[in-house]
Amino acid sequence: MEETKMNLSSFSIRLLAEDDCKDLIRLIKDLAEYERIPFGPKIDEKVLRKDGFGERPFYHCFVAECNNKELGSGIVGYVIFYFTYSSVEGRSLYMEDLYVSPQYRRCGIGLALWKRVAQEGIKNECFILNFAVLKWNTSSIEFYKKHGATNVTETDGYHIFRLQKNELYRFTEN
Amino acid sequence: MEETKMNLSSFSIRLLAEDDCKDLIRLIKDLAEYERIPFGPKIDEKVLRKDGFGERPFYHCFVAECNNKELGSGIVGYVIFYFTYSSVEGRSLYMEDLYVSPQYRRCGIGLALWKRVAQEGIKNECFILNFAVLKWNTSSIEFYKKHGATNVTETDGYHIFRLQKNELYRFTEN
Repeated sequence: MEETKMNLSSFSIRLLAEDDCKDLIRLIKDLAEYERIPFGPKIDEKVLRKDGFGERPFYHCFVAECNNKELGSGIVGYVIFYFTYSSVEGRSLYMEDLYVSPQYRRCGIGLALWKRVAQEGIKNECFILNFAVLKWNTSSIEFYKKHGATNVTETDGYHIFRLQKNELYRFTEN
Repeated sequence: MEETKMNLSSFSIRLLAEDDCKDLIRLIKDLAEYERIPFGPKIDEKVLRKDGFGERPFYHCFVAECNNKELGSGIVGYVIFYFTYSSVEGRSLYMEDLYVSPQYRRCGIGLALWKRVAQEGIKNECFILNFAVLKWNTSSIEFYKKHGATNVTETDGYHIFRLQKNELYRFTEN
């Protein structure tokens, strides 16, 4: 039997549905492992349902679903994004995660997910798309740069600062 | 006549009202100049009204208003923020701008504005507060670090990448 060739037509890109949150948390855990995040994600399926499908959604998400039984089934990639704002540029977009399961890479799913976010941005008059990449992740950096992205940390000296949970509480209590 | 001493009690911190957008754009322009942004902000008062007071607000904003006639009047500082999301941490907050007019500095207005954002985060179950600082802005960095902030670009290698308007269009068209 001939081996099924994996290509983009075997996958559909669509918005996350509430019942996909079980699959989404599985992929989020895979990504956290890949990014070497100690202890993994602090959220679970229940939180994803509450935060993405309440009155005010805190995030939006596109998923890639495999629709070729020979290649597997279910959700194999996702991208989380949300709308942001810049006092210089106005409406902007932030891409939080872009992840495709290792066995489904190299056929354009990641690119297709990223493009859907960019299209969603333009549709909503957001003309800047920001995202973070860990500096050791050279293969991702190469991929993003190839498609026109600039490292503004390097070009503009743009550094991200953070108040973590404990510091945030301490700060508000003083 | 004794000189009026400037202290925090001469100012009130409150949410931006739609009619404050004229004052807000003035301060945004001042900040853009301070941050040496070429050509200044691409948005104007009309855009601020549309984006902050429509069906889906793209940003939130607290302002500091002077209520002591001897010290001046009107809005002298602001902080823009919005809700974000992390697949590791869940609900988060991003502080876009924190600005106080030079003549009203050193009496705690900036700190009070920042604290209001942090409190708003905790109220909404957001336990991470992120913000960008330009790496040459050493006085701000010192201020933020003193209050518990960490530079995650340095500690975690967290670099920000961006698709600018032209690249964003080109990307979605291919």
